[in-house]
Amino acid sequence: MSFELAVLLADRIGVFVFALSGGTAAVRKDMDLFGAIVLALLPAAGGGTLRDLLLGVPVFWLEDPSVLWLAAAGGLVAFAGHRLVEAFKPLIWADALGLSLFAATGAAKAFGLGHGLSIVVVMGTLTAAAGGLLRDTVANREPLLLQEDVYATAAFFGSATYFGLATLGLDERAAFLASAGAAFGLRALAISLKLSLPKPRR
Amino acid sequence: MSFELAVLLADRIGVFVFALSGGTAAVRKDMDLFGAIVLALLPAAGGGTLRDLLLGVPVFWLEDPSVLWLAAAGGLVAFAGHRLVEAFKPLIWADALGLSLFAATGAAKAFGLGHGLSIVVVMGTLTAAAGGLLRDTVANREPLLLQEDVYATAAFFGSATYFGLATLGLDERAAFLASAGAAFGLRALAISLKLSLPKPRR
Amino acid sequence: MSFELAVLLADRIGVFVFALSGGTAAVRKDMDLFGAIVLALLPAAGGGTLRDLLLGVPVFWLEDPSVLWLAAAGGLVAFAGHRLVEAFKPLIWADALGLSLFAATGAAKAFGLGHGLSIVVVMGTLTAAAGGLLRDTVANREPLLLQEDVYATAAFFGSATYFGLATLGLDERAAFLASAGAAFGLRALAISLKLSLPKPRR
Repeated sequence: MSFELAVLLADRIGVFVFALSGGTAAVRKDMDLFGAIVLALLPAAGGGTLRDLLLGVPVFWLEDPSVLWLAAAGGLVAFAGHRLVEAFKPLIWADALGLSLFAATGAAKAFGLGHGLSIVVVMGTLTAAAGGLLRDTVANREPLLLQEDVYATAAFFGSATYFGLATLGLDERAAFLASAGAAFGLRALAISLKLSLPKPRR
Repeated sequence: MSFELAVLLADRIGVFVFALSGGTAAVRKDMDLFGAIVLALLPAAGGGTLRDLLLGVPVFWLEDPSVLWLAAAGGLVAFAGHRLVEAFKPLIWADALGLSLFAATGAAKAFGLGHGLSIVVVMGTLTAAAGGLLRDTVANREPLLLQEDVYATAAFFGSATYFGLATLGLDERAAFLASAGAAFGLRALAISLKLSLPKPRR
Repeated sequence: MSFELAVLLADRIGVFVFALSGGTAAVRKDMDLFGAIVLALLPAAGGGTLRDLLLGVPVFWLEDPSVLWLAAAGGLVAFAGHRLVEAFKPLIWADALGLSLFAATGAAKAFGLGHGLSIVVVMGTLTAAAGGLLRDTVANREPLLLQEDVYATAAFFGSATYFGLATLGLDERAAFLASAGAAFGLRALAISLKLSLPKPRR
C-alpha cells in the first residue's frame, strides 16, 4: 500500500469516527435522524471547513463530496446503534488517530501555502478540534473539549512538530508521519495516564 | 407579473417571515431590541450567507443590502407585536413558503456553478435551514430543527428535485418552480399529518 | 507619537481587554487552560475575522498573527489571575475603548472597499460586537450582548458616524477619530447613566 493510500484510508477512518461522536451526541439530545446527520457532519468536516475558509482556499469537500456521505453514514450508524457505539471502547483510540491525522493535514496545508509557525499551529489545531467544538455548540451542551483532557493540546503539539521538521527541510511525508505520531503519542499518554490541563483555582 | 418578480416577491416574504421567527425567539429569551434584530437577521440571511461563504462566491447581501433592512424590520415587528405574531396561525404556511423558495434558490445557485448532486442538495438544504439553526444556537436554546418535524428534509427533497430536473435538461424556471413545489408539498404534508422523522429508541 | 502608532496601541489594548473577557468567561465555566485561550481568541479576533470573511478579503491575522498571541496572553492572564481581573473596575472603560476602536476600524475597512451605509454599519458593528457573541455562544451561556445595555448600539452609532463624515469628504483620520469618539461617547453615557435598550413588554 502506498503512503498516500495509507494516509487517505486513515483519514477516512478519522472522518467516520468523528461522525460517530456527532451522531451519538444527537441521540443523547433526543434529536431526530436529520439532527444525527447534521451533528455528524460538524465534527467530521467542520474543522477542515473552517480552516479552508480562514485560509481563503476552496473548501475541501467542494471537489470531493464523498467525505460528506461518509460522515452522514457515520451519523446514521450512531443513530441506529448508539448503544453499541457508546459501549465500543476502542473508539477512543480511533478518535485519537483521527485527531492526529487531522492535525497533521491542517498543518501541512497551511505550511504548503507558505505560512509561518503561528498560522500552521492554529490551522492544525483548528482542523483537528474545531469540529468537535461546533458539534457541542450546536447541540447546546457544554464544550467538552474546553473542559477536560489533553486533546486539542495534542493537535497543537503535532502541528508544531510539523512546522519544526518541515522548516528543517525534512521530507513532506516524513514530517507528516512525525507530526501525526507526535500528536498521537501525546494523546495516547493523556488517555493512559488520565492527564489534564490545569484548571482554575477558585 | 413576470416570473422573476413573482419569485422575488415570494422570496422577500420568506425573508420577512424567517425574521419574525428570530424576533419572536429573542422576545422569549427576554432580549432587548438589538437582540431581536440580530436574531431576526440569522434565520433570514444566515443560511444564504453560509452557502455563499462555502461556495466561495460573494455574499449575496453585499450587493443588495435591502434584504438586511427587511430582516431587521421583521425583527422589529416581532419585538413590538410578539403576541400578535405568535397567535397568527397562517405564519406556519408563510414559513413553509420561505423554506421552499430558499431551498430552490440555493440548489439553483450551486447547480449554476457546475456542482454535482451532493453539493447541490447540501447548499439547498443549508440555504433553507442553516439560518434557523444559527438562530437557536446563538439564542442558546435546543435546536428545534434537529428535534422535530420534517423540515430540513423538505428542503433536501426540493433541492434534489432541482438537480434531477435541471440535469434532465428542464428549463431553469420550470426546475425552480418544481423544486420549490416539491419542498412545499412535502412540508405541507408534514404539517397536515404531523409527520416526523424517526427518533432514537432508548 | 504618530497617529498610526497611537491607533495601533489603542487597538492592541482593545484586543487584550477583549481577550480578558473571554478568559474570565472560561474560568466561570470551569474550563481548562486551553479553553481559556480559545475563549480569549473569540472576542479578541472573532469579530474582525467574521468581517473579513463576509467582505471576501483575507483574514487580518493571516498577515499579522501577533494579535493571536496577544489574545492568548490575555486568556492566560485571566486564567491565572481571574479574581484580580474581575475586581479591576477600570476594565469596563478599556472595554469601551476596544469597542469604539473596533467599530471605527470595521467601518473604515468596509468604506475603503467602496461599500454603502448598510454594509459599513453592519461591518463596524460586527467587528466590535460579534466576537463577544461568539464567546457567549461557544461558552454555552446566554448572550449578554443581546440582553442588556447600550453596547452594540454604540458600535452601530460610531460606524454610521464614520460613513457620514467620510462621505462628506472628511479626512480619513479625522473620520476615524470622530467615529471612535462617537461610539465611546455613547457607550460612556450608557455606562454612567445605566442606559438600556427597550425590553419586550410581556
